[in-house]
Amino acid sequence: MYIPKHFQELNKDKLIELIGQYPFASLITHTASGIEVNHLPFYLQKKEGESALFSHIAKANPLWKTVPAGAEILIVFNGPNAYISPNYYPSKQEHGRAVPTWNYVAVHVKGTIKFLHNNENKLAVVSALTNLQEAHQPTPWSVSDAPSMYIEKMLSAIVGVEVEITSITGKWKVSQNQSLENQQGVINGLATSGEMPLTDLASIMTEAISID
Amino acid sequence: MYIPKHFQELNKDKLIELIGQYPFASLITHTASGIEVNHLPFYLQKKEGESALFSHIAKANPLWKTVPAGAEILIVFNGPNAYISPNYYPSKQEHGRAVPTWNYVAVHVKGTIKFLHNNENKLAVVSALTNLQEAHQPTPWSVSDAPSMYIEKMLSAIVGVEVEITSITGKWKVSQNQSLENQQGVINGLATSGEMPLTDLASIMTEAISID
Repeated sequence: MYIPKHFQELNKDKLIELIGQYPFASLITHTASGIEVNHLPFYLQKKEGESALFSHIAKANPLWKTVPAGAEILIVFNGPNAYISPNYYPSKQEHGRAVPTWNYVAVHVKGTIKFLHNNENKLAVVSALTNLQEAHQPTPWSVSDAPSMYIEKMLSAIVGVEVEITSITGKWKVSQNQSLENQQGVINGLATSGEMPLTDLASIMTEAISID
Repeated sequence: MYIPKHFQELNKDKLIELIGQYPFASLITHTASGIEVNHLPFYLQKKEGESALFSHIAKANPLWKTVPAGAEILIVFNGPNAYISPNYYPSKQEHGRAVPTWNYVAVHVKGTIKFLHNNENKLAVVSALTNLQEAHQPTPWSVSDAPSMYIEKMLSAIVGVEVEITSITGKWKVSQNQSLENQQGVINGLATSGEMPLTDLASIMTEAISID
């Protein structure tokens, strides 16, 4: 990912926060048959002092047979994105020198993959993923709510995924190359749309302005 | 991307519609230095009877130097996605046999890339991208609204991207493996959340049910 310096986000806490807010990611692998992308939700957990990402795939997905343990992979987390019209810039009214762009937030995690076949490990992964997501439910469902024989059968149909992280990179392309006045114009333009991904991006931009 | 048969979307018009609705994509390349992902908006255009995808990158992005013309690349378009709680399934109340999943829509386009350096081609690309996005603005901005000297300077700072499509694959993972009653339960659960990506997914699921 090409990142000009002014779009680079070095605050690791912010990158980890984004992973928690937008956990549904693209797992990108490369083998002799080319590039392969699978879409999975991940969660981050400290393991022996190091951070690792966990998820699971269907056992019918050949990925665990074609990608060797220890292979380098890339996981891409996408935050909100939006088209940015020159209409949002107050400066456009003055001199007309403006072009559109696209604002977005992305976190790229490089790491080495391994697959988990042990039932205890797989249960830990599905339980942790479930508990994180169910926290938003009015009456959180728990894996132990289902009959244990059924859960055992379901576990046998999946393979766990563990990714040991080697690097995390964040791109916050949120108008930092514009004047404060234009940044505020973009925030207003997105916020007044009322559409969720756009208002989310407006919040991220407001935070970026107030920190810098 | 692993696609069980019941999640495969073969209707090419639906795939092309999704590209139009969610144009902001991941361009995935592979070179000697590994997997590289850049995030760009694309638009689809017929060219000599064949469909091609167009976008542009900053000239400062080394991609056009590291990826040779004709290289096979992958472009991933992501539709809405959402965690699906077992709480959404009416059948869970009866027998408890339910596990969470994640619903999502994704279109993968394979193709061969080439880069456009000619100003006329680049102007055509930025104009088409702009016009598509500005169609949603109350007062659409046009590239010709900016001073022509300024546009010429901006064009010199970008490189066009053209991808000749070799295959398009769609995955509509929207509860087709559940009973109609459970599918309706998921639609209700997502629709009542009021959050835009979730209500969008509910619409896609409603459409999927009414067509099948």
